[in-house]
Order: sequence, then C-alpha cells, then structure tokens
Amino acid sequence: MPKSEFELIAELFAPLAGKGALGLTDDVALIAPRAGRELVATTDAIVAGVDFFPNEAADVVARRALRVNLSDLAAKGAEPFGYLLTLSLPKPVREGWLRRFASGLAADQKAFGVSLLGGDMSSTPGPLSVSVTAFGWVPKGRAILRRGAGPGDLVFVTGTIGDSGAGLRALKAKKREAALIARYRVPEPRVALGLRLRGIASAALDVSDGLLADLGHIADVSNVHVAVIAERVPLSQALRRFDGDVVRAVTAGDDYEIAFTAPRGKRTQVMAAAKAAGVRVSEIGFVAKGRGVALLGQDGRVMPVVKKGWEHF
Amino acid sequence: MPKSEFELIAELFAPLAGKGALGLTDDVALIAPRAGRELVATTDAIVAGVDFFPNEAADVVARRALRVNLSDLAAKGAEPFGYLLTLSLPKPVREGWLRRFASGLAADQKAFGVSLLGGDMSSTPGPLSVSVTAFGWVPKGRAILRRGAGPGDLVFVTGTIGDSGAGLRALKAKKREAALIARYRVPEPRVALGLRLRGIASAALDVSDGLLADLGHIADVSNVHVAVIAERVPLSQALRRFDGDVVRAVTAGDDYEIAFTAPRGKRTQVMAAAKAAGVRVSEIGFVAKGRGVALLGQDGRVMPVVKKGWEHF
Repeated sequence: MPKSEFELIAELFAPLAGKGALGLTDDVALIAPRAGRELVATTDAIVAGVDFFPNEAADVVARRALRVNLSDLAAKGAEPFGYLLTLSLPKPVREGWLRRFASGLAADQKAFGVSLLGGDMSSTPGPLSVSVTAFGWVPKGRAILRRGAGPGDLVFVTGTIGDSGAGLRALKAKKREAALIARYRVPEPRVALGLRLRGIASAALDVSDGLLADLGHIADVSNVHVAVIAERVPLSQALRRFDGDVVRAVTAGDDYEIAFTAPRGKRTQVMAAAKAAGVRVSEIGFVAKGRGVALLGQDGRVMPVVKKGWEHF
Repeated sequence: MPKSEFELIAELFAPLAGKGALGLTDDVALIAPRAGRELVATTDAIVAGVDFFPNEAADVVARRALRVNLSDLAAKGAEPFGYLLTLSLPKPVREGWLRRFASGLAADQKAFGVSLLGGDMSSTPGPLSVSVTAFGWVPKGRAILRRGAGPGDLVFVTGTIGDSGAGLRALKAKKREAALIARYRVPEPRVALGLRLRGIASAALDVSDGLLADLGHIADVSNVHVAVIAERVPLSQALRRFDGDVVRAVTAGDDYEIAFTAPRGKRTQVMAAAKAAGVRVSEIGFVAKGRGVALLGQDGRVMPVVKKGWEHF
C-alpha cells in the first residue's frame, strides 16, 4: 500500500522542520519576533511547463522554488530563516519523486541557513506547482526597497546577465550549453551581498522579469529615469560564445541577480561589499530625472527594445 | 489592448493593500513585530476542480481561499491581520473575472479586519489556483496547538457538522439545497470564538479533512484517545432533512468549524466564551488514555467507519 500523505510528511518533511514549525504536527507556524527587526515575507510559485521543464529532476525543482524566493529576500537585504511550502502534485504521487524533492530542500536549507516552517500538500488535476513563502529578518527600517532611487545615483548589477535566458533557449533547442543551462535550472540568490548592501544601496530588486523590465520597476516606483549602458552589461564568456546578444540578455529574465542603485559617493562602499561577499558587481548605468528605462548604445543613443522583459499574461 | 499584469495589480489589488504591503510596489511585505506577540502563519491553496467548481463565481473563489486560511488562524486563537496571495490564472486572463475576485477579497477584508500584504500573479496551463498565506498575532506562548489534549478533557465543536459535505453532494447531484450549498461555498471562520478559547482550550484545530480525521490528528499528536459520541454531533435541520447521516457528517470535511478539547473543569468557561462570541458550541465527547479516535453509538459501542476523512492522495 502506498504511504499516506501524513506518513510521507512525517518521514520526508518533518526532518526539515525548524524552530516554530511545531514538527509539522500543526496547521500553522509560530514565528517569535526579534527585537529591533522587521519580518520580510515574500511569495512566489513555480509551475511545471511554465517555470521549469516538466521532466526536471525533483531536487532541482525544490531548489529552484526555494531560491527564487530567497533571491527576493536577498535583494531587500534580509537574512532568510524559514519558509512555508505549498506543493500541488499531479496523481499518482510518487514517493521517489517526493524523496528527491525533499533532498533538494535539505541541501539548500543547509546552504542558506533556512528551515521548513509548514505548508500544505495536495493533489491537482493540473501541472505540478510549488509555491513558497519565504521569511527573513532586517533591522527595523533598513530593508532595501524599490522606491529609493534618486537622480545622480549609479546603477549596479551582480554576476552576469542573460545566462539563464540563453540556457533556456539552449534547452529548447536541445543544444549542449552546460554552464548556461545550469544557471537557468538553479539560480544563485545573492544573500551574502544583499546583507552588505543595507545602508549602501538606495533601491534594489532581483532580476526575474528581465534586467530592463526590472529596472523599469525601480524607475516607476522611484519616479526617476534609469539608463543602462549596453556595453557595460556583464556578459559571461559562455554567453558571448553562445550569441553575445546584449538586447536579448537584458530582456530575458530569470537571472536572479540583484540590480540596485546607490549614490555616486558610495561607489567605493559598493565595491568593498562586493569584494567581501565574493560576488562580481558591475556598474552599468545611472539614474536621472525623468521616467522609464533606456538601453544606451556605444554612441549614447537609445537602442530600440521591443519588449523589455517577461510578462505573465 | 488588454491591460498588463502591472496595470491590473495597480488598479484592482493596490486598493486592497495594507500596512507593510508597500502599496504592492515591491516584491515583499514588511511585518513589524508587536511586543509580547508571536506571529502565526499558515498557508493553504485551493484549486479549480478540486476545492471548488470550475464555474464558481470569482468573488466566492476569493472569499473561500481567504477563509480556509483564516479558519486555521482562528483555531489557534490568533487574531488575523494580513495575507499574501498567489494567483495562478489560465489564459486568457479576463479583467472582469479579476475585478469580481478583488471585490470578494475587499468584502472579506472588511469582515475580518485583514489586508493584502503582497503576492504573485502568473498564468498557468493548468486549472485556476489560489494560494494564500495568512498571518495573525497571538500573545507569546498562548497559541492553541494540536498537542495539548489530555485524558479527562472534554471534546467540543462549533456550529454544525456535515453541512458543507452535504452541500457538495447536493451540488454534484444538481439538487437545490441552498443552505447546505452556501455552507460549502463560503465557510465561516470562527475567529471571534478562537480568540476567546485562549487559556481555555487544551488543543484545537479547524475541521477541514473531516471531524473524525481531524480529531484523529489531535489524538496522534497529543498521544491520547478521542471518543466522539455520535448522537451529540450537532447536525443542522437542513442536514437532517437532506440525509441526517451522522457517519457521513463526521467524515465529510470542509466544515471549517473549530474542534477543540478543554479540561472538564473549564466547561463553564467554554460555554461562556461561546455565548460571548455568539457561536453555538456542542460538547461531543471525551479524551482518554490510549490512541486514535472512535465514534460511539447509542449503546457506547464503537461504530464502524470505513474512511475517517479526506485524503489528498
């Protein structure tokens, strides 16, 4: 007889439960406040056939679901500590799949110092979907929001841009591009850097819709213009070999790098934070009075971009 | 041209945003701690074709998604204040549907004193699904858990049991049973009573899988035996007319009533709390040493129950 939902939870998920999870024996999680800190909460779902390939390995699905949420916390300067998990599974539910899924969670719990706080598991007639709500702490009032960019600020981004989008194209075209594909499958939340950007960055977010589209969100909310200098956008060697297309890179999305702004006078602090966190940070543009976002070519002229990034519908 | 995701969020959902939601302009919500209180967090998803009928009105879907989560908080004695919403929508996304969905949220935000803190909206190739993570406060250490039931305690339940399950059967059979169907479509979280059960109830949960199955969870976690006396299970007039089947009633699920235990000496306090909250509470059984849950017939003999409640797979 296959194991029941409750047996599977007790066997595979209870060992992942942390403080406040009540051993997954209750419907809720209890989160004790920490003095002088605010709780940062974020939620993101990933769906088979939309956000990952239906045949993706279970541990990769788990890590991706967790990491896209940790990335949101990282961009706010929050220290992650736990998450709730909602798992909607097509029937029949296979124990082996769940076991591997749980092993992916276990690996990333260790890597990022987080634990499972609770959740909900059910069957669905639709595709597999994994919804995570992740929690972190920031010192009160020090979360890095989208709305703090000001004219004169510089624009920065971590890592390299466009690898994940190229990895997705490679997967679809059945091309072997291991490095790019790896970046698509398992993003790298920039948690260590995010913590160091508190008090330095004026605005930040993680790049999920596409670098231009996401900087457009900062521009909208901060009521400023953001200019990105195309030749400064950091492209990996692998991407240069693949197509080296900067317009595609800045509109592809799924990078899960942190794009942020900081006052010009804090450039040295930005670079020191990058060094301390062991993360590449590139200065890619500037903030000005005005509206919207623009990609500037070598001659300083605005490059035409048909679609700035991913739209869900 | 149809409105973009961002326009729809700004128009329909931003007006629902509360303190800490940052006007839905960011990826996260900020929750400021309250002195002496713990945060209670719970998450539950509902899926079209599984948890509600695919043709259900959008405002009812919204209210149901919110209420099944508020019910979890109520059973813990938590005071709800906010929620995150993940909406996975089949294409094409219709503005009219979303508008009505938002109106359902607005109505229940007012009814329960909660506000939208953030979320995630995306398209899905599968059925519509709505995942909510809801938050409430309890004074530190005073959440009512599943694990506190002790031998000698009495067992209570709010409202009437089995109406929702009968409503679902009526809907499937296309029978007109307005009262029962209404209870299935829009459950009534017992928030006011839950708050008053702090310090009185020794264990509690909301009845979602089925009264027997859920009391079985309390029995498992508290390491006790729970006995339910069949003739004491509160059945509504509508249910008595429909089929009056108590075994079906205690195994049907979706009641979203609070089942709880309390020491015998607190019976008077339980009844006073019920009166103050304006909620019917029935004493339906007792806790003893041992394991598992049993339904007792008129002669005190254990009634045979094939399946104690809903299992997700």
